Amino acid sequence: MLTPANPDFAQRVRDSFQLQNAMHLIQARLEQVTPGNVTIVLPHWTGVEQQHGFIHGGVVGMIADSAAGYAAMSLVSADASVLTVEYKLNLVAPADGDRLIARGKVVRPGKTLSITQAEVLAERNGQEILCALMQQTIMVMRGKSEKPDQAARTSKPLTTN
Amino acid sequence: MLTPANPDFAQRVRDSFQLQNAMHLIQARLEQVTPGNVTIVLPHWTGVEQQHGFIHGGVVGMIADSAAGYAAMSLVSADASVLTVEYKLNLVAPADGDRLIARGKVVRPGKTLSITQAEVLAERNGQEILCALMQQTIMVMRGKSEKPDQAARTSKPLTTN
Amino acid sequence: MLTPANPDFAQRVRDSFQLQNAMHLIQARLEQVTPGNVTIVLPHWTGVEQQHGFIHGGVVGMIADSAAGYAAMSLVSADASVLTVEYKLNLVAPADGDRLIARGKVVRPGKTLSITQAEVLAERNGQEILCALMQQTIMVMRGKSEKPDQAARTSKPLTTN
Amino acid sequence: MLTPANPDFAQRVRDSFQLQNAMHLIQARLEQVTPGNVTIVLPHWTGVEQQHGFIHGGVVGMIADSAAGYAAMSLVSADASVLTVEYKLNLVAPADGDRLIARGKVVRPGKTLSITQAEVLAERNGQEILCALMQQTIMVMRGKSEKPDQAARTSKPLTTN
Repeated sequence: MLTPANPDFAQRVRDSFQLQNAMHLIQARLEQVTPGNVTIVLPHWTGVEQQHGFIHGGVVGMIADSAAGYAAMSLVSADASVLTVEYKLNLVAPADGDRLIARGKVVRPGKTLSITQAEVLAERNGQEILCALMQQTIMVMRGKSEKPDQAARTSKPLTTN
Repeated sequence: MLTPANPDFAQRVRDSFQLQNAMHLIQARLEQVTPGNVTIVLPHWTGVEQQHGFIHGGVVGMIADSAAGYAAMSLVSADASVLTVEYKLNLVAPADGDRLIARGKVVRPGKTLSITQAEVLAERNGQEILCALMQQTIMVMRGKSEKPDQAARTSKPLTTN
Repeated sequence: MLTPANPDFAQRVRDSFQLQNAMHLIQARLEQVTPGNVTIVLPHWTGVEQQHGFIHGGVVGMIADSAAGYAAMSLVSADASVLTVEYKLNLVAPADGDRLIARGKVVRPGKTLSITQAEVLAERNGQEILCALMQQTIMVMRGKSEKPDQAARTSKPLTTN
Repeated sequence: MLTPANPDFAQRVRDSFQLQNAMHLIQARLEQVTPGNVTIVLPHWTGVEQQHGFIHGGVVGMIADSAAGYAAMSLVSADASVLTVEYKLNLVAPADGDRLIARGKVVRPGKTLSITQAEVLAERNGQEILCALMQQTIMVMRGKSEKPDQAARTSKPLTTN
């Protein structure tokens, strides 16, 4: 298991998630938070559907991106923040089922850049079907060495503590 | 300019967009639809924000994915449908501003696979700032030759006509 | 373990690899071939170096792409062929060491599209260090249903049997 | 046109390319170097072929990655270096023809991260056909602020000056 630099990593992740209106808008919930691993769950409801009654692929991407980004946040020190630099998502099956489960994990933590992956599964009648696979690059920004406006110019704050 | 195989391409794109609950949930609007080019606009409102008051990166991805997918749909015949196979998104600046403009375009149409790109711009005081860049692979499925359940096994229906 | 549709999958992969001049040019060797998994090894020699004496990132990409593409080929029927549609590669450490080991695997086989991943490790003094991670989309083309010239228009033949 | 921070950017790019054995191995040549744009050309010869006589997709990736990486290098100051963090490449047609032309360009320069794109064209009888499209993330490392061993831990040196 990976070692978190911040003993309060789980609370920090939960506090940040709580402040994200967009996660509430789609009714996503944060579930498991362990060092380097975060799970987000999304119930299937009409507001997140596309025209065939499946969950919209963009919403699948939202929870994959967030689960992996928070997995990265779970490992950094309390004065560091994480940004999504980029991600690549394969959609491999319709997001059909009672709910979606996005599991993000850090596959290579780094001082400046961390590489993460996420999978999104659709749960239906107790069975899980793979819907999406993601590979993501996260930037870690530390304390005062990185000025906020510089960060603003190079990437999107997923959080800045 | 690329040539659409369906003379009613614009109406078809608009009808499909109209049925996507998830687009309404985030208050996205379809604007320009020309052959191979689609623009989606998103007002900045509190429901789509992350914790710093910027628009959530996942929402940026949703409109980029949709704008490029619909750009691909604008070129295919009336009996064909399009699926997002995968996309790669770079987030290059915080999605700050009064509204976001996602411009999708087909850079290489194909019989089976089309390659698209999208850029997302944040408009603020009349200025546009680049927030995100995407490169995407779209699968085109034609009429009866592709069975629905086979399609379902390999990718997400963005639309199936 | 995944089930190969072709009992002679290993020989087929080896025959194809043998015909790739570019693999010989860089001195890559095919090692393990099991259903859904292929390993390619590259010795560190001066011809594949960049200016600092590490193995060139482009060469890292070559063996990652090939290992994963051949992993996909190991599962398809004898009359089907595979093409690389696209891949995304993160380079996470310099390719330093005595040799590189690229391990490709199929993470989601499909009738039309398969998703694969690869990791590239640098071996040095018996230790393996992760250098690169890749996620890839492979198209499977079956027998006469796909005309060669159509295939040629949409993607690169990694092999067409 | 983008403004280079180093007046000797073209010579610096040429010097770096000259030292890359792997570029010589595949017989790639550096052609145009302007601020934010670099062109690499590869003749079609047997050593870079795959089994059907097309140029190997991995070799296509090598010149795309390098053209875009050098495009980024053309803009940075003399004491800064650039690393490829990751790239995503779509292969859209077989690399057939007399020679390949890889055109890399910087689409968004940044202090820490730059986003680039490349296209690879196959030239045949004076016609150019699009073979590949790439989107890439480049890290810029400045002077002493980034220790070499830290850089080594997070990414591949394309150059470190």
